[in-house]
Amino acid sequence: KQSHTFYSGKQIFCKARKYEAIRWMMMFAIGVTVGLVGLFVDFFVHLFTKIKFTVVGDSVEKCSDKGCLPLSLLELLAFNMTFIFIASVLVLIEPVAAGSGIPEIKSYLNGVKIPGIVRLRTFLCKAAGVLFSVAGGLFVGKEGPMIHSGAIVGAGLPQFESITFKRIKFDFPYFRSDRDKRDFVSAGAAAGVAAAFGAPIGGMLFSLEEGSSFWNQALTWKVVRHLSQLTPKRLFCSMSATFTLNFFRSGINFSKWGSFQLPGLLNFGEFKCPDGDTNCHLWTAVDLAFFVLMGVVGGLLGALFNCMNRKLAKYRIRHIHPKAKFIRVLESLLVSMVTTVVIFAASILLGECRDLSSPTTHNTTLSGSEDINSTIRRFFCTNKTYNDMATLFFNPQEAAIHQLFHQDGTFSPMTLSVFFLLYFLLACWTYGVSVPSGLFVPSLLCGAAFGRLVSNILKVKLGMDIYSGTFALIGAAAFLGGVVRMTISLTVILIESTNEITYGLPIMITLMVAKWTGDFFNKGIYDIHIQLRGVPLLEWETEIEMDKLTASDIMEPNLTYVYPHTRVQSLVSILRTTVYHAFPVVTENRQNEQDFMKGNILVSNNIHFKKSSVMSRAGEQRRRCQSMKSYPSSELRNVCDEQNAAVEPAEEGEDLLQQMLERRYAPYPNLYPDQSPSEEWTMEERFRPLTFHGLILRSQLVNLLIRGVCYAENQSSATQPRLSYAEMTEDYPRYPDIHDLDLTLLNPRMIVDVTPYMNSCPYTVSPNTRISQVFNLFRTMGLRHLPVVNAVGEIVGIITRHNLTQEFLVAKLRQHYITI
Amino acid sequence: KQSHTFYSGKQIFCKARKYEAIRWMMMFAIGVTVGLVGLFVDFFVHLFTKIKFTVVGDSVEKCSDKGCLPLSLLELLAFNMTFIFIASVLVLIEPVAAGSGIPEIKSYLNGVKIPGIVRLRTFLCKAAGVLFSVAGGLFVGKEGPMIHSGAIVGAGLPQFESITFKRIKFDFPYFRSDRDKRDFVSAGAAAGVAAAFGAPIGGMLFSLEEGSSFWNQALTWKVVRHLSQLTPKRLFCSMSATFTLNFFRSGINFSKWGSFQLPGLLNFGEFKCPDGDTNCHLWTAVDLAFFVLMGVVGGLLGALFNCMNRKLAKYRIRHIHPKAKFIRVLESLLVSMVTTVVIFAASILLGECRDLSSPTTHNTTLSGSEDINSTIRRFFCTNKTYNDMATLFFNPQEAAIHQLFHQDGTFSPMTLSVFFLLYFLLACWTYGVSVPSGLFVPSLLCGAAFGRLVSNILKVKLGMDIYSGTFALIGAAAFLGGVVRMTISLTVILIESTNEITYGLPIMITLMVAKWTGDFFNKGIYDIHIQLRGVPLLEWETEIEMDKLTASDIMEPNLTYVYPHTRVQSLVSILRTTVYHAFPVVTENRQNEQDFMKGNILVSNNIHFKKSSVMSRAGEQRRRCQSMKSYPSSELRNVCDEQNAAVEPAEEGEDLLQQMLERRYAPYPNLYPDQSPSEEWTMEERFRPLTFHGLILRSQLVNLLIRGVCYAENQSSATQPRLSYAEMTEDYPRYPDIHDLDLTLLNPRMIVDVTPYMNSCPYTVSPNTRISQVFNLFRTMGLRHLPVVNAVGEIVGIITRHNLTQEFLVAKLRQHYITI
Repeated sequence: KQSHTFYSGKQIFCKARKYEAIRWMMMFAIGVTVGLVGLFVDFFVHLFTKIKFTVVGDSVEKCSDKGCLPLSLLELLAFNMTFIFIASVLVLIEPVAAGSGIPEIKSYLNGVKIPGIVRLRTFLCKAAGVLFSVAGGLFVGKEGPMIHSGAIVGAGLPQFESITFKRIKFDFPYFRSDRDKRDFVSAGAAAGVAAAFGAPIGGMLFSLEEGSSFWNQALTWKVVRHLSQLTPKRLFCSMSATFTLNFFRSGINFSKWGSFQLPGLLNFGEFKCPDGDTNCHLWTAVDLAFFVLMGVVGGLLGALFNCMNRKLAKYRIRHIHPKAKFIRVLESLLVSMVTTVVIFAASILLGECRDLSSPTTHNTTLSGSEDINSTIRRFFCTNKTYNDMATLFFNPQEAAIHQLFHQDGTFSPMTLSVFFLLYFLLACWTYGVSVPSGLFVPSLLCGAAFGRLVSNILKVKLGMDIYSGTFALIGAAAFLGGVVRMTISLTVILIESTNEITYGLPIMITLMVAKWTGDFFNKGIYDIHIQLRGVPLLEWETEIEMDKLTASDIMEPNLTYVYPHTRVQSLVSILRTTVYHAFPVVTENRQNEQDFMKGNILVSNNIHFKKSSVMSRAGEQRRRCQSMKSYPSSELRNVCDEQNAAVEPAEEGEDLLQQMLERRYAPYPNLYPDQSPSEEWTMEERFRPLTFHGLILRSQLVNLLIRGVCYAENQSSATQPRLSYAEMTEDYPRYPDIHDLDLTLLNPRMIVDVTPYMNSCPYTVSPNTRISQVFNLFRTMGLRHLPVVNAVGEIVGIITRHNLTQEFLVAKLRQHYITI
Repeated sequence: KQSHTFYSGKQIFCKARKYEAIRWMMMFAIGVTVGLVGLFVDFFVHLFTKIKFTVVGDSVEKCSDKGCLPLSLLELLAFNMTFIFIASVLVLIEPVAAGSGIPEIKSYLNGVKIPGIVRLRTFLCKAAGVLFSVAGGLFVGKEGPMIHSGAIVGAGLPQFESITFKRIKFDFPYFRSDRDKRDFVSAGAAAGVAAAFGAPIGGMLFSLEEGSSFWNQALTWKVVRHLSQLTPKRLFCSMSATFTLNFFRSGINFSKWGSFQLPGLLNFGEFKCPDGDTNCHLWTAVDLAFFVLMGVVGGLLGALFNCMNRKLAKYRIRHIHPKAKFIRVLESLLVSMVTTVVIFAASILLGECRDLSSPTTHNTTLSGSEDINSTIRRFFCTNKTYNDMATLFFNPQEAAIHQLFHQDGTFSPMTLSVFFLLYFLLACWTYGVSVPSGLFVPSLLCGAAFGRLVSNILKVKLGMDIYSGTFALIGAAAFLGGVVRMTISLTVILIESTNEITYGLPIMITLMVAKWTGDFFNKGIYDIHIQLRGVPLLEWETEIEMDKLTASDIMEPNLTYVYPHTRVQSLVSILRTTVYHAFPVVTENRQNEQDFMKGNILVSNNIHFKKSSVMSRAGEQRRRCQSMKSYPSSELRNVCDEQNAAVEPAEEGEDLLQQMLERRYAPYPNLYPDQSPSEEWTMEERFRPLTFHGLILRSQLVNLLIRGVCYAENQSSATQPRLSYAEMTEDYPRYPDIHDLDLTLLNPRMIVDVTPYMNSCPYTVSPNTRISQVFNLFRTMGLRHLPVVNAVGEIVGIITRHNLTQEFLVAKLRQHYITI
């Protein structure tokens, strides 16, 4: 009975079980690789930044009295602009490597393929590029690009081949499906988060929150179908990344091989009250009210940031992208120059000398980073004081965040305001320049300045007893939340970065308030950039209003279909004249089929197929009863004995069906199924009833043609050669194009029997299904094509991604309102 | 077009939006309530335990020389047995309150309703009972019962009414559906975990891992459909619980109102190296190998524990449960007595006096619990030494865990072995006794002893430089993992309890190894108890082998169905003679329908319905083109202009359908649809083709009958009264029974039109769909009934939970093998 189902469950699932062990090993390999990439990027960023700041800082400190500051500025400019030039050139080589990469990965996981997004070349440009763009002193983070890099590792490693380097090609015939690939991409992204933030759980949740919006069946559903089937793999992958990184970092930086105590690349140090102070609290119930307010302000600031960045991005698309490519390099260099000058000028001119608190109340030795006071800058300040602006600007961003979180010495409100303003504007300008650039750390730093400002006002002006670090952290969370609009994964990432669970509630409340406030004005920054790129992302659910529409309102009723048995010439013509990825396999509901069956093997094969594919209740019951005869259980037999009496007339039943079919008359012109659809047809002909039998993919049809799977008219369809699952998927991920097909090898009169290869039981919906339910099925099951089938089994239309995009639905709804 | 769909999308979704705010508030209310419950339980457990151990401990210390130990034992026995007696009596009142409650909640969330599981009475008995069973010194934890209590709060609070106390009934007409209720139950369980372990993220993940195995659509799917739609609510609920608890605990215990610094009820103290010691590591790469081994041993021990407990539970079911109820109380008292005597005897006789280390290297003041040395017991030991066995046995379990994790003073290997053995056996005996009893803390303590034993051997015997606390923690994780077989949520719970992210990798690896090892022998303890109770839990996926079967193999082909228009007498007869929860709405495929339509309004109504419900491609295209005429877009109009020419013959098309229908002849005896199915029918009659139109629930049919929704034969079906959504769901969750119906009020000849109330587009599958795909759809969408519909729209069977249980599938597969 199942013989005609090509995708027999056994094949797929046996494979799945067999590959389980390989899958775990792959996850480990991806995790380790991503960890090593993180290590590489971090090591060189660290090295370059250290060299740069040491050289320039020394030069400033030394020549402060000699008036040779311009020389220092030139030194700094030379460093920064060289680095940024390299980063820009790398992006020129592979334009997809620009930006944070999170919008691209999100689109990819939503089911939209953007060319080049997971190529090895992109990976090399991105990883090397981000190194230089961060070292070049731009206000960018390395987190986004590391997530993208992780995703590419996930996509590429299990394939064991590369398009960039054709020579990399091993015989590793596993994981040759979109589903597997997306799975690994998602795991790789999780590992990227884990490596970037030292947050394995956050990474897993990130890949759920931002990532798994496409293949619910494979990823999300499986994931939650226990969180113990697939998510463990992802968590394992994340943890592998984190601990690989920590292993090597503690080995290289501290010569403690074998220890894993170091936190992730981004860590916020330890928030703790001084040991003796029992009145000190990290936060209290009263503070929560302020946190909510800060969440609102953070949401507003984030919305402003997104709005400005959106305008900028639009301007870039309109005025910069159409021009020669080197213009983009020039823009990067301009941004770099302005940033450098601003940093330098602000540090020298606007910094205030502030008292340094006693140096030991806070130290972060435990968390493995340098002592907090080792990163202060004294520029022109006498002993025991320090230049607060320079401390923030003349340090790596992570060190500046540490300063804002843990420096007991105060920052002047003026400095914090100026710093915040400059940083806000420059970061906004920078995001979108063609260098690899993340947004997490700049947003955190910007927000931390805001939070520290609030704490300064509350503590110094109002004399409240609060813990400054907490406010700085909450400010950072509020601003970041306002910009990117994530909640769950960000909460967990921040908790993991602080290693302090008690911050859970305030961080979550702040992030949610920030998200709600921001959502009032515009979308998150990633969604804005996805939208600007015109990617048709599918939402998770439709608006309430859309339920005024039904499946029949949005489906595409003009179908290009194939018959179960079709001539090669028809197939080639259909494949060459359309771009659809899947075709319904249908039979016509002609009335006098018996007449057609005579003489035309093609027609009669199709009619035979239709008859044999309709299972009737009586037929099934008969089958069961017959099989029951040989079944030992007496109880079950009794049920059937009385029914077996009725077996005899049953055979007649099938004849009746046949008779019925015979007696119908033909209301349509005598179109043979091997005629290709003609433009001359009337609407009735074009939309005549078609019984739906299955779906077949374009790639499968092309494959069948290339491999010569067909039979001659005077032979039985059983003579058609059969392909194995491996043969059908061999060419993944790039199947041959129909236009590459050598037609001379094909006999156009041969007939292809597609029934063994089609998906004979795809999910379908009835025409009056509500849009929300259609959406639910489509998204949850990760569908590409959803046939709409009416109450008598006729296909009336098909729903694809296109029919579910927001724009399409809105247009349909407008039409709906006009016509009622 | 949509008018006949009762569940119009708008109603449901407008409601959803309107209730969004109420839902958040509910989540907060549930979280706070669960937090308060946790506080209540914890406070009294603490109080009772403190009184008990102070009184008895003092008595032991005082009279150690006078030989009056028996008196102390009697005191202890009196305390313990009184407490256990109270706990047992509470369970007698509500037997469902016994045990941990996790199997029950898991079953509930899987879709199986166990009576009384979420009643207020159960809640009261459980919360009060666990208090006494923990205070009574049994080897039970309060975590499981608190999760159950949380779930009940979640189920009950949003209903604002109670069956236990009928007077509690407010007019709060929200959340009157199974989906909402399950949602809140799941959130409540998450809050329970959060309160019990101080692990809000772990709670959220727990409710995903163990909980959401039923309503994917509502819970799991929605959850992951962003983790930002519903999960935030759950996380928020969890956090509310945690922080409510911490707020009050820091207020009550430490008079620090407004501070939230305290960790959860179960916290493991702070794992940290002594400040000066740079060579100390919590764990190293080498240790990981030992952790894997410990995971294997933990899995083996867990499997042994489960196996023994299973045998015991079977014995109880066979020999104790059938007897009088007070026997169970006696068993509880026996367990209590034996436990007490063992504790006492072991402490006095088997304890060794061990050196106390310098008292200040480890303190846990930061984490808010008492100093580690305040809980040691000196029984008969001289100064500077302590009785190690008594320290473990004569303390609350949490304190004993702290001792094993943080006590620098050594425990003798002998003591640890004896402790482990006694604890293992007693805990195994205890779980299943009729008192509320959790399993987490006993498993942790037992495992911690095992881990500490391993560390003792490695450190003292082999002289390795390791951190004992880590090994104790890993041992605890290994044993707990071996018993309950959870991975993700347990990893996160343990990380949150230690507040140390660097333990992520070792804990996860240990838990996974333990799970794999244990799964080799038997299932997790909760699944074993679910199985013993005979609950037909649905797995998340089927075995590979099952894909040899298709939907048609497992479906139920004997259908009890209703027609779109049915007489009251038929409905009553169907409802009274069957127990199905849903009925397919079908029309017959009779051939000479035109003849039937004359004279019989019932038949003609049904035939009219069938005709109007079949949408044809041509009809839809015609409709679109007509509506397009009024649509302004010129582009769209062009598409249709050519097709509009074909509109005219279209009208004819419908006539053709009618003519076709007319020309068919009747192959079956003239059965009127208002005849109820007869036993006299032949198989052909009984299994005649039926076109499927929708599903209607038993509760809906009963509701329609009770409210007199029907029309007289000589009237149009439009005269039938219409019910609103609120009227249809008013009686949730307990709809009236058909047998309570007063038949005298009904006119049996009246006709009910069920079409406005049926679900006209449920998910369906085709007969040759693979079992794995059926499973996927059924479980992911949280279905109860899945009609199997063939290629021409005829229903051939129906699949319910029953057809997907493991037993049923295995039986079908065996049959399949026999018959091929």
